[in-house]
Amino acid sequence: MLIAKVRGTVVSTQKDPSLQGSKFLLLQLIDENGNLLPEYEVAADCVGAGLDEWVLISRGSAARQPSSQEKRPIDALVVAIIDTVTVDNSRLYSKNEVYR
Amino acid sequence: MLIAKVRGTVVSTQKDPSLQGSKFLLLQLIDENGNLLPEYEVAADCVGAGLDEWVLISRGSAARQPSSQEKRPIDALVVAIIDTVTVDNSRLYSKNEVYR
Amino acid sequence: MLIAKVRGTVVSTQKDPSLQGSKFLLLQLIDENGNLLPEYEVAADCVGAGLDEWVLISRGSAARQPSSQEKRPIDALVVAIIDTVTVDNSRLYSKNEVYR
Amino acid sequence: MLIAKVRGTVVSTQKDPSLQGSKFLLLQLIDENGNLLPEYEVAADCVGAGLDEWVLISRGSAARQPSSQEKRPIDALVVAIIDTVTVDNSRLYSKNEVYR
Amino acid sequence: MLIAKVRGTVVSTQKDPSLQGSKFLLLQLIDENGNLLPEYEVAADCVGAGLDEWVLISRGSAARQPSSQEKRPIDALVVAIIDTVTVDNSRLYSKNEVYR
Repeated sequence: MLIAKVRGTVVSTQKDPSLQGSKFLLLQLIDENGNLLPEYEVAADCVGAGLDEWVLISRGSAARQPSSQEKRPIDALVVAIIDTVTVDNSRLYSKNEVYR
Repeated sequence: MLIAKVRGTVVSTQKDPSLQGSKFLLLQLIDENGNLLPEYEVAADCVGAGLDEWVLISRGSAARQPSSQEKRPIDALVVAIIDTVTVDNSRLYSKNEVYR
Repeated sequence: MLIAKVRGTVVSTQKDPSLQGSKFLLLQLIDENGNLLPEYEVAADCVGAGLDEWVLISRGSAARQPSSQEKRPIDALVVAIIDTVTVDNSRLYSKNEVYR
Repeated sequence: MLIAKVRGTVVSTQKDPSLQGSKFLLLQLIDENGNLLPEYEVAADCVGAGLDEWVLISRGSAARQPSSQEKRPIDALVVAIIDTVTVDNSRLYSKNEVYR
Repeated sequence: MLIAKVRGTVVSTQKDPSLQGSKFLLLQLIDENGNLLPEYEVAADCVGAGLDEWVLISRGSAARQPSSQEKRPIDALVVAIIDTVTVDNSRLYSKNEVYR
């Protein structure tokens, strides 16, 4: 999975019928030092992530494992809102203290 | 999923029989600031996207989830025509106003 | 899918038994301006593509959708020989006129 | 598969219900000379890997092959703790001697 | 598929039970001119490839198509030992003559 920051939303009315009701988040990838990377992903969201939150994205067929996403033509899904990221036993990120 | 701009079409008569009737779009990827990237994708289209429109592309087995695409040897599909893209609460793109 | 040019062949006698009879093509990827990229792919061929022809490659599980390729350990397949590529309403490539 | 070094952990309480009980490791990829690459992966762990250990990561649907991971929306899994890596008949890494 | 050269082995005793008996090869990718690329892959081997041999690697779910690999959490498999690679009708590599 990849760590990303919620940066915005993508809205579409003309889409595959199975995507009705899907919310698409614009996510910018984060490197292992907590810096924003110049890469983004658009993913469906099944955990209710908010703007600026750090999340975990699963890509490929993993995105369709939850029953709510089965048979939907999606290849990326937000599967978790991150509480903490620890590197070499020191705290890189903590949702509560928002070190970053 | 990835955001891309419809730039053209790819036509082929000699192809896997299951691809008869498929329309292939040439799509150029767009970065999170709305700029064209030097990367493209060729995708089947199931939403009727037009030239210069911004779309969402799903890749991998996601492309074969709609019943119309099952068992077709495709690995990319246009799944939505984008109305708006919002980043940090400000409008990056709007199909109606075509900021870009 | 990706656009590529047939550059050659890869021959192997010692291979997974299910690959007996498979022809492998060496394909160089092409960018959206029609230039060769420094990236290649080896793909099985089910449309009879010839040297220097432009083709469409499908990758991942898409390569095993045609019944002839089921259960074969391949991750790339030539699925179409390209007749024309049009970008912004102007012809980038035409098999007959071989602009490139 | 890819070789990586365990660098830390990612903790999340708000996640897809099927991920309850999953431990996520932050892994930094390693190149063929044993140097850390500027790329990381977050993976579920089913072999109990510890900090600084070299491991093998499988990505994509491979991550959901063990019965313990079926139907979980994960796209990366630690599948082995590496004992040794040998290149051109000479030892690049050995868990016991920790050449690196 | 990708062309690679066998450079070494990766040994692990602590691994997913289904991987018992699997041999992992360290493979360095080769470009279309026959030069080693700074990218490697670790793959299971089902054709008995030896050090310095050129091989074809399949990645993703393709790696689990042979019955011997079903349900194993692997995402890369050596599927063929290469005899010859021909580019623009001239021989780039021949196992017997080992041009490279």
